[in-house]
Amino acid sequence: MPAVKKKILFVVMDGLGDRGCKVLGGMTPLQATPTPNLDWFAENGSSGMMDIIAPGVRPGSDTAHLSLLGYDPYEVYTGRGPFEAAGVGMTVMPGDVAFRCNFSTVDENYEVTDRRAGRIKAPETTELAKAVSGMKINGVEILVKEGTEHRAALLLRGKKLNPDITDADPHDIGPVAVSTGKNKKGEFTASIINEFVRRSYEIMKDHPVNLERRERGLPEANILLPRGAGSFPKIKPFTDKNAISGACVAGVAMINGICGICGLDIIGLPRECAGNIDTDMIKKADVVLETLKEYDFVLMNIKAPDISGHDGKAEQKCEVVGRLDEMVGHLRKNMPENLVIVFTADHCTSSDVGDHTGDPVPVTIYTEAIVKDEATEFSESGCAKGSIGRIRGYDLLPICIDLANRSEKFGA
Amino acid sequence: MPAVKKKILFVVMDGLGDRGCKVLGGMTPLQATPTPNLDWFAENGSSGMMDIIAPGVRPGSDTAHLSLLGYDPYEVYTGRGPFEAAGVGMTVMPGDVAFRCNFSTVDENYEVTDRRAGRIKAPETTELAKAVSGMKINGVEILVKEGTEHRAALLLRGKKLNPDITDADPHDIGPVAVSTGKNKKGEFTASIINEFVRRSYEIMKDHPVNLERRERGLPEANILLPRGAGSFPKIKPFTDKNAISGACVAGVAMINGICGICGLDIIGLPRECAGNIDTDMIKKADVVLETLKEYDFVLMNIKAPDISGHDGKAEQKCEVVGRLDEMVGHLRKNMPENLVIVFTADHCTSSDVGDHTGDPVPVTIYTEAIVKDEATEFSESGCAKGSIGRIRGYDLLPICIDLANRSEKFGA
Repeated sequence: MPAVKKKILFVVMDGLGDRGCKVLGGMTPLQATPTPNLDWFAENGSSGMMDIIAPGVRPGSDTAHLSLLGYDPYEVYTGRGPFEAAGVGMTVMPGDVAFRCNFSTVDENYEVTDRRAGRIKAPETTELAKAVSGMKINGVEILVKEGTEHRAALLLRGKKLNPDITDADPHDIGPVAVSTGKNKKGEFTASIINEFVRRSYEIMKDHPVNLERRERGLPEANILLPRGAGSFPKIKPFTDKNAISGACVAGVAMINGICGICGLDIIGLPRECAGNIDTDMIKKADVVLETLKEYDFVLMNIKAPDISGHDGKAEQKCEVVGRLDEMVGHLRKNMPENLVIVFTADHCTSSDVGDHTGDPVPVTIYTEAIVKDEATEFSESGCAKGSIGRIRGYDLLPICIDLANRSEKFGA
Repeated sequence: MPAVKKKILFVVMDGLGDRGCKVLGGMTPLQATPTPNLDWFAENGSSGMMDIIAPGVRPGSDTAHLSLLGYDPYEVYTGRGPFEAAGVGMTVMPGDVAFRCNFSTVDENYEVTDRRAGRIKAPETTELAKAVSGMKINGVEILVKEGTEHRAALLLRGKKLNPDITDADPHDIGPVAVSTGKNKKGEFTASIINEFVRRSYEIMKDHPVNLERRERGLPEANILLPRGAGSFPKIKPFTDKNAISGACVAGVAMINGICGICGLDIIGLPRECAGNIDTDMIKKADVVLETLKEYDFVLMNIKAPDISGHDGKAEQKCEVVGRLDEMVGHLRKNMPENLVIVFTADHCTSSDVGDHTGDPVPVTIYTEAIVKDEATEFSESGCAKGSIGRIRGYDLLPICIDLANRSEKFGA
């Protein structure tokens, strides 16, 4: 009788790992907060520590999720352009060339006077992005979407595009730079970018948003300056690579963007499950349980602990950990049979540092028939006692696919 | 508020790791000796085991220190020539081609009769090296320095040099080999070497050192035979690579040579801090503490435990461990705030084997806010209980740079 093929759930608690925090008497939020449900999984599962990228390397959320999905970021990460575009919720497709952009201010001589247009932001940038998005230049479609503050993402979609071009953004005040091909292949794409920059000025200079800013004495966002061209990453789609279907349940556009690039289906969420601090974790867990009925693999991302870490609020992070544990209890009660369930983080976010750090994250894997080990507490120190030892982020998926009885034998 | 950037200190106790020793009832010197200060750091820090190069690989002191400085020796180690030269205290520079040499004995027909000239050694070799060092052949400067016993290092310094040449050392008794270019590019360098070998004979054959050896009936060291040509390693300087300044405090020329090749500054030491068994460790620690005021990173090497291991003296090694622990106590009392301090070894030197072994070495990292783990004893078995797990030598520096709040985020 062949072994039952199991399903796989990654519960990625964003930025959960931490360092010893002064306000917690040198403990981490995970060490300082009772987590009976997470501990139950640690006690009954296998635990260890995981370098998401490599020892000491501070992961971004993008590279971290690539690694968790089984890709080596050093192989597939093609620069921030495409991931930034995916991050603001654009669908990046093979052949696209993507850029990061600033809404900037130029004078009538095309001299940049403010690279950030007075740190303009949504909803003004939303309107401006709509105004310049959708045009075609020499058969190339141009898509623009606003990002945080003065930032935007830009996609070129068409034939013969190439990312080997220089930035139109001068990276300083002064004349707008003319994009050029770094080689013959890039020349066409550079010409498209230069024409787009010119047109963005024509369209935006007297746009109602800017007329109003002029009246208020604010720098006008009258030009878009692209930089950091990158092509669609050469990523073998998740399902082709692993022979399992996959979905992502996340409240953050960037995570959905990354998972989308990897070929996972993106599951819509009710507004109360958004990626903020007071997200409804239980409701999100219910969406995950529903999604597991349809898919072999689900990645669930909960952003809340990362937010507390970035804000330097260790005590708030403890409170978030408490709510996470309740959610884990809900999963424990309601999870289906034949499931490989994983609790981990995409990186540490130190509440003292206020940013991601390169420390390894704790990881616990549970399924029926897994080898129980000495770890009984889910924390940075507790999981270190476990039998998994120290692995890399991209090792986790193959381990789980094997525990799910879905891996292929290498050799005979 | 950005996190405080910390400084980093590596305390490298040379050859400290060991195997179970018969005379210690199967314990290692670290297990057999009380080390309250090292244990304090283990108890309050994070510990683990480290394969300096890779599991089961016996590191040399040169490759070991490359790895500790964050370089993959398999990538940057360009053969023994340049490292041997650095190892005897020569300053190797980009463009140089370096060789290992033997002082050998030839008869009047240029036939090698003793490849090691009766294992001649300093001070005789010191005089002979001086006699042949400093000449110029076709614009190429030639530098020679004696090494251990009959060995020497040779540097060619000039234009158009290339290491792709065959050895002048025949590696056996018989005619002196004629060096040839392995390809067109090597021919010039081979011609320089052949001319140097000829001249070394002319200079040394009636040198007072050899006249005296002739009288005493000893084989004369009347020729220098180079082998193992290597170019200056392509090493990105430490500071460029890591964006931190670095210095080395070591009593051994070879360690200083390696660190110098990597771009660290070499700190001078008083005679009583030399790399021998009865070195003044406390005084060396004071030099280290002074050096830390000026540099972001300091590597301290203490040679004594390695010497006991090579000599097969396990009990002496225990005594050395006790003195090391006192020195560690001195560091503990006097170390500055905001320091990431690391205790480890560059390799194991087994007192039973009398040489380096490929066993992993214990490592403990301490800084404020580090995650405390289960390890409470600094030893080969004690550190294995810690949360670091099993890492590679070249992982250590990135981990510490991250803990020092100096690492860059990979991705967004």
